[in-house]
Amino acid sequence: MNKPVNQPKSASAAITTRAQDYSQWYLDVIKQATLAEHSAVRGCMVIRPHGYAIWEKMQRELDDRFKATGHENAYFPLFIPLSYLTREEKHASGFAKECAVVTHHRLKSVNGEVVPDPDSKLEEPLVVRPTSETIIWAQYKNWIQSYRDLPLLINQWANVVRWEMRTRLFLRTAEFLWQEGHTAHATEKEALEETWRMLDVYADFAENVMAVPVIKGRKTAGERFAGALETLSIEGLMQDGKALQMGTSHYLGQNFSKGADVKFQNKDGQLEYVYASSWGVSTRLIGALIMTHSDDAGLVLPPKLAPVQVVVIPIYKSDEEHVKTMEEASRVAAELKALGVAVRVDDRDMQPGAKYYEWEGKGVPLRIEVGPKDLEKGSLCIARRFVNEIPGEAPDAQRRRRKAFLPRAEAIASIVPTLAAMQAELLERARKTRDARTRVIDNIADFEKFFKGEGGGFAWVHWAGSPEQEDEMAKRFETSIRNIPFEDQIPAAAKGAGVCILTGKPSAQRVLMSKSY
Amino acid sequence: MNKPVNQPKSASAAITTRAQDYSQWYLDVIKQATLAEHSAVRGCMVIRPHGYAIWEKMQRELDDRFKATGHENAYFPLFIPLSYLTREEKHASGFAKECAVVTHHRLKSVNGEVVPDPDSKLEEPLVVRPTSETIIWAQYKNWIQSYRDLPLLINQWANVVRWEMRTRLFLRTAEFLWQEGHTAHATEKEALEETWRMLDVYADFAENVMAVPVIKGRKTAGERFAGALETLSIEGLMQDGKALQMGTSHYLGQNFSKGADVKFQNKDGQLEYVYASSWGVSTRLIGALIMTHSDDAGLVLPPKLAPVQVVVIPIYKSDEEHVKTMEEASRVAAELKALGVAVRVDDRDMQPGAKYYEWEGKGVPLRIEVGPKDLEKGSLCIARRFVNEIPGEAPDAQRRRRKAFLPRAEAIASIVPTLAAMQAELLERARKTRDARTRVIDNIADFEKFFKGEGGGFAWVHWAGSPEQEDEMAKRFETSIRNIPFEDQIPAAAKGAGVCILTGKPSAQRVLMSKSY
Repeated sequence: MNKPVNQPKSASAAITTRAQDYSQWYLDVIKQATLAEHSAVRGCMVIRPHGYAIWEKMQRELDDRFKATGHENAYFPLFIPLSYLTREEKHASGFAKECAVVTHHRLKSVNGEVVPDPDSKLEEPLVVRPTSETIIWAQYKNWIQSYRDLPLLINQWANVVRWEMRTRLFLRTAEFLWQEGHTAHATEKEALEETWRMLDVYADFAENVMAVPVIKGRKTAGERFAGALETLSIEGLMQDGKALQMGTSHYLGQNFSKGADVKFQNKDGQLEYVYASSWGVSTRLIGALIMTHSDDAGLVLPPKLAPVQVVVIPIYKSDEEHVKTMEEASRVAAELKALGVAVRVDDRDMQPGAKYYEWEGKGVPLRIEVGPKDLEKGSLCIARRFVNEIPGEAPDAQRRRRKAFLPRAEAIASIVPTLAAMQAELLERARKTRDARTRVIDNIADFEKFFKGEGGGFAWVHWAGSPEQEDEMAKRFETSIRNIPFEDQIPAAAKGAGVCILTGKPSAQRVLMSKSY
Repeated sequence: MNKPVNQPKSASAAITTRAQDYSQWYLDVIKQATLAEHSAVRGCMVIRPHGYAIWEKMQRELDDRFKATGHENAYFPLFIPLSYLTREEKHASGFAKECAVVTHHRLKSVNGEVVPDPDSKLEEPLVVRPTSETIIWAQYKNWIQSYRDLPLLINQWANVVRWEMRTRLFLRTAEFLWQEGHTAHATEKEALEETWRMLDVYADFAENVMAVPVIKGRKTAGERFAGALETLSIEGLMQDGKALQMGTSHYLGQNFSKGADVKFQNKDGQLEYVYASSWGVSTRLIGALIMTHSDDAGLVLPPKLAPVQVVVIPIYKSDEEHVKTMEEASRVAAELKALGVAVRVDDRDMQPGAKYYEWEGKGVPLRIEVGPKDLEKGSLCIARRFVNEIPGEAPDAQRRRRKAFLPRAEAIASIVPTLAAMQAELLERARKTRDARTRVIDNIADFEKFFKGEGGGFAWVHWAGSPEQEDEMAKRFETSIRNIPFEDQIPAAAKGAGVCILTGKPSAQRVLMSKSY
């Protein structure tokens, strides 16, 4: 007979609640779900299999969207010659500060100690790419001669490095994984259309795959990508009331084509500099995912990004029961797999309760329990990772709503629609949470009350201040202008012109202010 | 009316033939097919979209096989602290010679010149990973406590850097893309089984996806991975008679677990060091693909790795014909897509002949031409990228065999079986080419004749020499022992014991010798 022998490590340590310490809760969720951890290399994280599987799902969804909009993938060098990085002036000042610099190409042993070999010093240091505009545009010079070579629509999946002293798993690490689109166009109009199109792709992905509602808009001049004429962003609101920039799309004008001297012959036979866009999202999105949906029991995943959507757990006391419940668990799994569901059977030699705890902490949307009684009755027990909250409901009542005992066929048939419903519920729940922390604010007193007394969130405010006055707001309230939302992003109550909350100067439309990551 | 206005650049320059200059032919094939090119960064290549699409297809096929054998993907840091690299003695001496070394983390402007900021010098230099055993085993220390945590079966898709002075696209570059599996086991037996299993996965991929026949075997002690107790390899033979090592799988024993102090409690409650394997293949495989199948017209791709399997080209003279043939081309493409075929319609404003030339150079297996006469007759013209060679056949006759005019329904139905047949033909052709350049050799005179007079290939020879005598062979003939093939890899004519071709000493089995990349 099988005897459960030990509890999993995770079962011994309940996680910190959000109310206790939000920052610690975030780290606890990551640890419990085995998503990632720090490495011995300062600022670099290790993405563990469960975290990486989420990233793979994100990659697949994004990549399909990039290809559907005509883009191809390619790969460019990890290293950028120092002189390239300085070709575009603003770009250089924006990125030169925080680079990993390669200066030698060999090691040698000196008095028993291994050191960089002085004889291997590079003539020109190489910078580990913080972003690839300069190295890619150097190559585009060979690829673009005529308007017939345009548009050039390329994306790269890669690792990049931006040296960071204070790191935070997924949100801010020295090395991170991302994709970067780099496109070249014959006209400003086309490049602008591409810039807007890819922001829409990101917003669609955020809302319909991640179930995170976002607000689209322009960044202020001070927040633009180094070298861009226009930076667009999508901004999500985390459960602690801080915004997270989830993706950016940049219109680069001719800045980089001039830096790399990339001209093309237009239809009239004249030489012109090419127009450019670039756009990217990164593993930071996993941080957004965690902070939008997870709860005090740990990770919550939208079904579309869950590496395991359903876990099936056999419940038994005797060897005979074990055999029978495992047979049924395997049948159930095979039937769900045939329906396109990502399913796993957990037959480890552990207490069922410990398994429930572990899979809940990993964010698996649905659990199916198969016990001897279920076999007798021809039923299955389906437990949801979460249900919509009903104000004032007793915990026991909510717990009952999370579990359903259904006739077998009905249970199997319910899985795909239930996953779809949970996906929609998460978006709805995130939207409600965000809206509950969103205010239309018309004076500094209310602004102060919101950010200092009520924990803050998104504030729709009129603004006509100077960059220095933006800094003043940042000092007083730790807030910044997240973006200047597009007209169709502004709720009815926030539409129209008004006066700046700080200066009283006229303002044509409201901006989105908040604290942020 | 549409007038073709210009020829594609590629049409103007026919490629060097293999007979003229094999090395230049290789580079010309890559250039014509737009697979890759050198970058401005010494030793680093740019993988262009068509080359990267082939890599993506390889990744998908390999990743599916890794997951089917129980592996999960994860991601570890790009940087390795210098002290880690030196934890395993042989490993350090093997990899320390050719590393990119990061010594600073910031740049500054000094007298108008941007230089590494002396104040940002790292206390401990970081090495850009040449392979990840040391950094991964440092992490495994946290993950492995008990036999219950084993086996740990992890794979990583990543870029790695090994400084190279003499580079060759795909075959030898400073930075390359690869996958590296790193597994941990409770027993030597399990780790050895894993090492052998993954070599089989590679061999299956090489033969059944790449259509490249390979010989599996053990490397000699001198050719082992730095830090391994056993290195297995698969070896392919290129058209010029040189071998290419296409994948390796290493049994690492307890070398790395001792280096990183990774012990586990076994079932008897005792602490033991963990047993390890690692295994990898890289973008080098694209070089093997090119050199095995391509011909004097350019790239030839096995259908399973062709990003575009069928290109459909409308042929027309008038606008009216253009509309009609394009309609039919789109219908044909839609029908093929529904059959799971990767298809593209080429409606660019160019001469059909120039399009044929371009797609042939890119290795697309099948071309469908849709002209006004085909529409009238209800037929389609299908052209194959290659056909099996018939000795003594006139070029014209072969050209006729490459084109088939079939009734429409029959043509559509033939595509999937034809692609499958072409896949099989490529493997068969590659096997014949290899076998024609394979000899069982029993004395140095014949060995010399084979490698100096007949261009060489695979030589099955008995060997019992010393490492110094291996070096002697390398100097005299530029040959090396590719591997010591497994018993089931040895053809009947080469089986059995004999005497060493150099020393006359007894030898239990033959080894595989050849020149190599």
